[in-house]
Amino acid sequence: MNYQELVSQIKKKKSFLCVGLDTDLAKIPAHLLETEDPVFEFNKQIIDSTKDFCVAYKPNIAFYEMLGTKGWESLQKTIDYIPKDIFTIADAKRGDIGNTSLYYANTFFDTYNFDSVTVAPYMGSDSVIPYLQHKEKWAILLALTSNKGADDFELQELKSGEYLFEKVLSTSKEWGSEKNMMYVVGATRPKMLAAIRKIVPNHFLLVPGLGAQGGSLSEVVKYGISKDIGLLVNSSRGIIYAGNGKDFATKAGEKAKAIQQEMEDLMDVNL
Amino acid sequence: MNYQELVSQIKKKKSFLCVGLDTDLAKIPAHLLETEDPVFEFNKQIIDSTKDFCVAYKPNIAFYEMLGTKGWESLQKTIDYIPKDIFTIADAKRGDIGNTSLYYANTFFDTYNFDSVTVAPYMGSDSVIPYLQHKEKWAILLALTSNKGADDFELQELKSGEYLFEKVLSTSKEWGSEKNMMYVVGATRPKMLAAIRKIVPNHFLLVPGLGAQGGSLSEVVKYGISKDIGLLVNSSRGIIYAGNGKDFATKAGEKAKAIQQEMEDLMDVNL
Repeated sequence: MNYQELVSQIKKKKSFLCVGLDTDLAKIPAHLLETEDPVFEFNKQIIDSTKDFCVAYKPNIAFYEMLGTKGWESLQKTIDYIPKDIFTIADAKRGDIGNTSLYYANTFFDTYNFDSVTVAPYMGSDSVIPYLQHKEKWAILLALTSNKGADDFELQELKSGEYLFEKVLSTSKEWGSEKNMMYVVGATRPKMLAAIRKIVPNHFLLVPGLGAQGGSLSEVVKYGISKDIGLLVNSSRGIIYAGNGKDFATKAGEKAKAIQQEMEDLMDVNL
Repeated sequence: MNYQELVSQIKKKKSFLCVGLDTDLAKIPAHLLETEDPVFEFNKQIIDSTKDFCVAYKPNIAFYEMLGTKGWESLQKTIDYIPKDIFTIADAKRGDIGNTSLYYANTFFDTYNFDSVTVAPYMGSDSVIPYLQHKEKWAILLALTSNKGADDFELQELKSGEYLFEKVLSTSKEWGSEKNMMYVVGATRPKMLAAIRKIVPNHFLLVPGLGAQGGSLSEVVKYGISKDIGLLVNSSRGIIYAGNGKDFATKAGEKAKAIQQEMEDLMDVNL
């Protein structure tokens, strides 16, 4: 999916919601465990009930990889099931060099047909550029994450006066453009979004940390919105585990709809 | 495998060689492509011919993941085939937070029974600590890598005067000990090893970049050796693709033996 198509979907659905498919056998409703592929069965029902309210799905690859071969099969079936007008994110946080990065890119872009993959920046340019050479595919680079450990390195101040995450933004934006790169910025630090927008005014930001981690949607929009909205705000547990009974998908749909409506109101006010 | 067992193996074999199993269908000898599982068949013969000369094997996970389900099966068979007195490294460079890190750790430590996994430090403490909670398992943290892109962030100078990679070492060493953490330090920057040894005198260093990337073994030992040797020096392509005919495994064994003998000489001189 390209930039313009993504912006169109957001405007059409009046939503910039990304649903995180962090599907965990220990957390899904018990009645699904008797089905042949509980992970896919859960995802399928979640997708059916939320697809009208979101513009992206983001499976966290750890949850699938952990299950071995069976997990990768569930992932493949999930990706195949997601409607083609919805953006897909492999939340894999990969980072390696040269050929190896190219192979990770091939895995997620070709084998599994994701639109995008999250990438760790630590190893620098040659660990990221291989992801930028696939047409209409995206690298989503970690910049400022929502966890406590962000203080350890991301928020270290460089001699130049920048924080490390700002250096990651200013250096890496030269490797691609807003047409093939996005950045991860946690919702738990909304005021940092203003500083980030000075460096990358037009790039999409993938914003996790809403709900369970305590981020505020109105603050994220206030400080982070771009001329083309430029936000994908993710919620995982808050939506997919909204219910735990046979009606779990209905509950998830209601929760996704409520967030979509809040987003619609915020888009009216802020654009 | 624990610290003392690893040191014993190194002293017994007079080798600190790690063989990188970056097994690529585009590079292995053509006659193997007709076998049922060419990747495993290649690895099996490489292991048979090199196991007396090395103390560790390091499959780079990208090469397996790229092949989908079949690749994970080849990986599982490879791990099962490696003799139990040889240290195993999942070169996965994972990095995520909380539960997700725990799931990645479970995948590599439990599902696949690796001794260790490489981990990216960018997201900080809560992305690394979950790997340190498995008994006799190891996190191998990226510190200073051998690629050109290391200049972009790893070698940025902080306000405190440290390079970022030095900050990674000094901060992260508090999260564990030399009994459950190692660091990746590229062979292409051997003189940096002296500075690194001031921060982590006793930790094992996993050193890639020998051979194809131009690092020198004698320089690595000169600047990097610890009281218990404390080095695992990796060679991938230089060993596994030493030959390309039906005798590829013999050629690989000869190459591994030559490196082992150079290591034996260097251990005699430097210990």
